[in-house]
Amino acid sequence: MAQTSTPEEPARPAPDPRRRSERARKAILAAAGELLGEVGYARLTMEAIAARARVGKQTIYRWWPTKAAVVFDVFTELTGGTAGEPLPDTGDLDADLRTVLHAIVDEYADPLMDRVNRAFIAEMQTDPELARSVADRLLLPNVRAFQDRLLAAREAGQLDAGTDPALAVDLLLAPVQQRWLMRSGELTHPYVDALVDTVLRALGPRG
Amino acid sequence: MAQTSTPEEPARPAPDPRRRSERARKAILAAAGELLGEVGYARLTMEAIAARARVGKQTIYRWWPTKAAVVFDVFTELTGGTAGEPLPDTGDLDADLRTVLHAIVDEYADPLMDRVNRAFIAEMQTDPELARSVADRLLLPNVRAFQDRLLAAREAGQLDAGTDPALAVDLLLAPVQQRWLMRSGELTHPYVDALVDTVLRALGPRG
Repeated sequence: MAQTSTPEEPARPAPDPRRRSERARKAILAAAGELLGEVGYARLTMEAIAARARVGKQTIYRWWPTKAAVVFDVFTELTGGTAGEPLPDTGDLDADLRTVLHAIVDEYADPLMDRVNRAFIAEMQTDPELARSVADRLLLPNVRAFQDRLLAAREAGQLDAGTDPALAVDLLLAPVQQRWLMRSGELTHPYVDALVDTVLRALGPRG
Repeated sequence: MAQTSTPEEPARPAPDPRRRSERARKAILAAAGELLGEVGYARLTMEAIAARARVGKQTIYRWWPTKAAVVFDVFTELTGGTAGEPLPDTGDLDADLRTVLHAIVDEYADPLMDRVNRAFIAEMQTDPELARSVADRLLLPNVRAFQDRLLAAREAGQLDAGTDPALAVDLLLAPVQQRWLMRSGELTHPYVDALVDTVLRALGPRG
């Protein structure tokens, strides 16, 4: 109903349904993000999102079947939909890895991102379907992007020919993810720089 | 009340209050562990634990102020109370690290351990007090035990003098923890062996 202009009101300019949809979509995602920060994932409801976004619940269900699906899009919106985007390749692997890992550290430092991310991690532990969808749509594409960059470096002789790209990505990402998750240490650019130095020392070409 | 024998019943042999307490304590932890597996942390209640353990709720509250405290002890019981135990030191760092990391991988593979661990991770994301107590009583003691073993190896000239023990522990533990947490890959002894090989290559003495 919200998407059709009615012939009974010919004098009024018809609202552009696409722009109206986009406005509603953005309002819903913004409301869900705010509420997530305020009440957490468990107590987040479609009703509350609808009320905050000033739309009908049906409008939400038109695009998202579940609360998890809404929150998922809050998350991808926050990351700028960059999951799986290729890493920069300037030819300087060390510099490219720093660039990307600095950006990840900065992302983790964002308070809304932090909350949404933690809500996901918590929920994934008991919701296998959400876990799969986060893995398939966010984690694996990012891991693959890292692997591709490392394979290009291996091809160029900058990494040892025996380098296992899966293990290499774990060594670069897991320490950053764990520090953030467990709040087990400072997560700074210098930390990431030392990490990249150390990992590249392990992976460099051997005689 | 459960801990005193009453003078009104002199003919009956007084039960040993310490053994009785220990039995109740074990029954409560076993009940909490079972229920945690069945209903998850969020829906776990002190009432249900008391009913399953066949004790009064007051008996639980005598030892544990909160549900989190009970579950915390389920967890430490499962790990054999080994948090902070020194790593083996046979003089062979590579072998010692493999031994410990194989044990960690085996622990993660235990279904009850898996559930309790995931319940904790989920809860820690929204309960800062629990997060602190898990960090102080479980994570940090373990990290320190790893650091001590690495410092001994550095002292013995088996690691480069510039080795940062905090980063080194992250490199050894975070990939294992993340693989388990995000179910992002197989968590096997060969994986751990490759991890130790690679990390020690990075940390070895440099010319």
